Formats: sequence, C-alpha cells, structure tokens
Amino acid sequence: MDWLDHVRWDRDGLVPVIAQEAATGDVLMFAWMNREALARTAELREAVYWSRSRQRLWHKGEESGHVQQVHEIRLDCDQDVVLMKVTQRGHEPGIACHTGRHSCFFERLDGDRWQAVEPVLKDPAEIYR
Amino acid sequence: MDWLDHVRWDRDGLVPVIAQEAATGDVLMFAWMNREALARTAELREAVYWSRSRQRLWHKGEESGHVQQVHEIRLDCDQDVVLMKVTQRGHEPGIACHTGRHSCFFERLDGDRWQAVEPVLKDPAEIYR
Repeated sequence: MDWLDHVRWDRDGLVPVIAQEAATGDVLMFAWMNREALARTAELREAVYWSRSRQRLWHKGEESGHVQQVHEIRLDCDQDVVLMKVTQRGHEPGIACHTGRHSCFFERLDGDRWQAVEPVLKDPAEIYR
Repeated sequence: MDWLDHVRWDRDGLVPVIAQEAATGDVLMFAWMNREALARTAELREAVYWSRSRQRLWHKGEESGHVQQVHEIRLDCDQDVVLMKVTQRGHEPGIACHTGRHSCFFERLDGDRWQAVEPVLKDPAEIYR
C-alpha cells in the first residue's frame, strides 16, 4: 500500500499539520496539506503546504526565504493529523509566522483577555518585499 | 468583547486544538473544541473537547482518569488554532492516547512506511473498563 493511502484525508482531501521546532520543541505553526503537498514534503524534506486561502501548493519560504527543513514526519492514532519536526531556516532565531514572530501561537489567554506575548523579530515589510 | 468571540470558529463552529506537554514540550494530541468546550476548559483548567464522533462534550479523562491539567491557552496569528500547555494526569509518565501511549503521534514515516515507534505504557483494556 502506498504510504499516502494510510492517511485519512478529510472531506476536502486535506490533513492538518503541526510544525514543531526540532531543537526546542516549540510549536511553530499549524497548516494543511493535501496528498500532493505531503508527497512533495517527504520528497524535498522541506515543508510544502496547501494554502486554503490561495487554493494552491505553498512551498513554505518561497517568498520569505523562511524554509522549513523537515527532519521527521509523524501521524497520529487516527491517521488524520500530521506532526513534523522541523528546523526553521532563513533567520536566527527562526521566524515561522508571517507577523515576523518565532511562532504563530503568540496570543495568550490571560484571564478573559488575549495578550500578544512574543516579540516581532523582523518587520514583515522587510520579510515580504 | 467576549474573548470567545476573538476565536475564528470554522464552518462547523469548531477550532482545532493542540495539546502540548508543559514539562517536556511533547505534542500529545490534537482534538477539536466548540465554544462551550473552550469556555469550560478555561474555567476548569482541564481539557474539555468536542467529540466529533460522539457529537458531545468530552471532558478528557472522564473514562480513563487521564485528565489534562491546562496551564496555558494560546491562539495563533489567524485566531483559528488553539495551543494548550498541559500536564497529563492519571499515570506516570503521562498517557494521552487511547492506545495507552504517551502521545498520539506514535507513527513515524521511515522511507515509504509508517512505523509505530512509541511503546504502549498501559493496556487500553486496563484503562477503559
């Protein structure tokens, strides 16, 4: 059996993907892949997602240079979620978020308010130009 | 504004949730919450998910005793994914997966094959009885 057939794709043919920094364990981002994206990710050892907003393959870093090197690909017990161990390339420390932050998960719930608690490492206007 | 209105719920009124072990950084599991589940999680400081298969609230550990204590709740840059820092209670080391494993992400892609690479810490027949 093709290893891609082992994945339980959702009704849109997608699977959710968590990117975790290999060195630190930080969860950097969450995105989606279709079959072709996962196949290309495994082949390139660089993250290729499916952009739901743009409805096309999205080789992470194609504009920003912030490529994700993929060390390991895992699947969960229901075969419907992927976890990748990555190294975030292109900036030190790594910038995974389009806001210029290390991780996309920068809003923290404090009481009944969300607070941005991670610094912007690089101005997005500098990243995407 | 109610902090729950800041979350961008999907077409089913759900948000994906990643549970990460606070002490180790291990990604333990992935599940979904609706508005009520997230409200109850924040209130109880224990993970309450929405079970899509059972179509009801699911207080994690209600059968297994493997409750997840919630230390921190984060939201991503699109406000449509939640990341929680948790301590997995009820067994040492923690068991988050219904298969009796520490983490649900126990299948690793090796070449073109998925391999189960994490041990079963407790027989599920012992957990759910």
